[in-house]
Amino acid sequence: MAGNIIGYKGIALKLLEAAKVEIGSNVKITSDRKTFEGILIPRYELADDEHIVIKLRNGYNIGIKVTSIAKLEKIGEGPKPAFVSPPIPTDKPRLPTVSIISTGGTIASRIDYRTGAVHSALSAHDLYSVVPELSEIANVETKILFSLFSENIRAIHWSKLAEEIVTCIEDGVRGVVVCHGTDTMAYTSAALSFALQNLPIPIILVGSQRSSDRPSSDAAVNLTNAVTSAVSIPIAEVMVGMHDSVSDTSTVLHRGTKTRKCHTSRRDAFKSINVSPLAKIEEKNISILTEEYVKRDPKRKLVLNSKFEEKVALVKFYAGFNPEIIDWYVNEDYYGLVLEGTGLGHVGNNLFSHIRDAVNHGLLVGMTSQCIWGRVNMNVYDTGIDLQEIGVIPLEDMLPETALVKMMWVFGQTKNVHKAQRLLKTNIANEFSKRTIYL
Amino acid sequence: MAGNIIGYKGIALKLLEAAKVEIGSNVKITSDRKTFEGILIPRYELADDEHIVIKLRNGYNIGIKVTSIAKLEKIGEGPKPAFVSPPIPTDKPRLPTVSIISTGGTIASRIDYRTGAVHSALSAHDLYSVVPELSEIANVETKILFSLFSENIRAIHWSKLAEEIVTCIEDGVRGVVVCHGTDTMAYTSAALSFALQNLPIPIILVGSQRSSDRPSSDAAVNLTNAVTSAVSIPIAEVMVGMHDSVSDTSTVLHRGTKTRKCHTSRRDAFKSINVSPLAKIEEKNISILTEEYVKRDPKRKLVLNSKFEEKVALVKFYAGFNPEIIDWYVNEDYYGLVLEGTGLGHVGNNLFSHIRDAVNHGLLVGMTSQCIWGRVNMNVYDTGIDLQEIGVIPLEDMLPETALVKMMWVFGQTKNVHKAQRLLKTNIANEFSKRTIYL
Repeated sequence: MAGNIIGYKGIALKLLEAAKVEIGSNVKITSDRKTFEGILIPRYELADDEHIVIKLRNGYNIGIKVTSIAKLEKIGEGPKPAFVSPPIPTDKPRLPTVSIISTGGTIASRIDYRTGAVHSALSAHDLYSVVPELSEIANVETKILFSLFSENIRAIHWSKLAEEIVTCIEDGVRGVVVCHGTDTMAYTSAALSFALQNLPIPIILVGSQRSSDRPSSDAAVNLTNAVTSAVSIPIAEVMVGMHDSVSDTSTVLHRGTKTRKCHTSRRDAFKSINVSPLAKIEEKNISILTEEYVKRDPKRKLVLNSKFEEKVALVKFYAGFNPEIIDWYVNEDYYGLVLEGTGLGHVGNNLFSHIRDAVNHGLLVGMTSQCIWGRVNMNVYDTGIDLQEIGVIPLEDMLPETALVKMMWVFGQTKNVHKAQRLLKTNIANEFSKRTIYL
Repeated sequence: MAGNIIGYKGIALKLLEAAKVEIGSNVKITSDRKTFEGILIPRYELADDEHIVIKLRNGYNIGIKVTSIAKLEKIGEGPKPAFVSPPIPTDKPRLPTVSIISTGGTIASRIDYRTGAVHSALSAHDLYSVVPELSEIANVETKILFSLFSENIRAIHWSKLAEEIVTCIEDGVRGVVVCHGTDTMAYTSAALSFALQNLPIPIILVGSQRSSDRPSSDAAVNLTNAVTSAVSIPIAEVMVGMHDSVSDTSTVLHRGTKTRKCHTSRRDAFKSINVSPLAKIEEKNISILTEEYVKRDPKRKLVLNSKFEEKVALVKFYAGFNPEIIDWYVNEDYYGLVLEGTGLGHVGNNLFSHIRDAVNHGLLVGMTSQCIWGRVNMNVYDTGIDLQEIGVIPLEDMLPETALVKMMWVFGQTKNVHKAQRLLKTNIANEFSKRTIYL
């Protein structure tokens, strides 16, 4: 009988047991159509019992349907964890402490896989054993807050994460690193930017686009550079630290309210939108790329406003959009809508009466652009002028996703629509950048 | 009493009449806060009677609230149309005929403004007088099909436009140019790509980001290069022709299914996504940038499938998304949903049961990514595997907007969900590109 087959059940489990395969074994699976070789990896969360998942040599995982499997054989043991925790140097001056909080995602789950443990991956020991350089940079304290794919992270998690960061700051750490899935990392970075004001130290969200067992992995570089930044960077803001380009080893830090995942798979998927990144880190050298940032000041008194209201929607307009969707939100007692309009901030004129109804029902309605880059300008065409007359608020160059999170945060602070409108238009965390020159 | 004050009514009209101001007059308006100088321009469509709109020297229009106006004076007459139609050269060989179909948008409305006529702007004479070079390139035949801001263009317009293009092709023209607002130009270019198959000649959509009376206008260059391409390019596909960069005078042609407006205001707002542009035109020189395209062949027999079904929705997922929206579409008897998920094609697991219900009710559900760049891959994480099990179709590297238009077109061809699924997965107009290498 096989030993460690975490997450498998039913017929998948029976098949694996029969072949004496364990997590980490090299397996060869012949299915209806072709043959796959790879390492058996554990399954998580809502896994069905109909698939066996292996990590191919190219680093991607594939799920193979059990009913399609003609043959499953073990062709060897997988690599055992190759690193052991280096001793923490006792003859060096005491290193600054950095908190690493894990919420899940590739950067955490791959480390899970390496150590073979699914639900307790991110101990300081695990981290040191995977990224031994960390022990040279900081005294790392770790906390597993969630183990979630980031598409499942939402307002309640933002609040808990913000509160956990406050605890770390109160403990006097030098900086905080948050491991997070990349899918919704920009939503969370925006949320923390609004929830944690007057930050004394940097908060750096970090993820990886490739698992740490792939030659092209960005996990170790991103984590090392994030911890380096947490220790040394003079910027006390919420930032996202990810690869700068497809080919290099540097990390760029994006402002939490001004970044977005712009590629499904590339390591440099995150871009700063409408602004320069804040900093670049390469080989432990930090270059600051902007003159305008909040300076690190351990004495600064943090302000926590961690409430978010989920009855706020992001509504993307498109050709053929059904305006009755707007009515649905009104009927569901939503507090506000962020429209993702076209161009300079437009929607079809068949939406006008529905938006007017929403405004008359007390909803706050803001406008962003699905162009992503640029700034809405609702004074150029009649459509924009008409929408402003109806009461739609132009949200300048704020990203649609940031605007959504901000409106959720705004209605977490007040349910008064006038106060909410004022707060929405107030620049809280550099979510608005200064007026750009139209070229 | 003043003469031509098109579009003004109520108190705005009274104020203008009192100052003896006409459309095209130079005016100086002092309002609560500051003084504006510019040219009075006509108002369109749903204009209220509370604003007076002038074109500032920087080329942007501004609407000034009548109640805020302290003083309004005429400071001169505006420039009269400066060009007259050059005689069509009779001693040259007969030029090929190009059809220009106008649907509205900046490129057409600014020409309207210049000629002073709002609803009949795009005669060949108007075009020659604004862009005299055209008479050297082609014998232009013009048609005003609509006068719409493109945010108001939807499926019924796509069908009519496709049918109008068929008429032009049957008349034996060398190529067709479509003037279109930029806001939804990419939706229309995708729609035409599916509706007009087996094209014998090029169809080029063209717009402008700046009005033709601004020094930085892209209207004349884009139009000239579009007509040049219509005459000479060897590619018989639906394309979008817009500025290549902010500074130069060249136009790039993007494939109709693979382009997107990625900036609210820059002249080079359109980008080819996940592929190279098809061609570049500069100073009448055409460079073809790809080896794979459909060659011009006047004998090829066009196939028209111009029906679109509007009961198809684009649903953008985000942190905090309310899954009951999915139920709403089911209850409204929608045929299909295109999800705009995160990363490689994910949504929160609280949507799973709702998506399963939708599929069980016979809806076709496809997955695209809000990353915009890259390809969905639903075999990497459990979320993707689970969603495929539920019946969600990964839509490769198709843009979310193109996927929406395609699904609308698919259900215009068949209401059978199995046939629809097959058609959705079939590469009709290069909306799928070949598998890219993951870097």
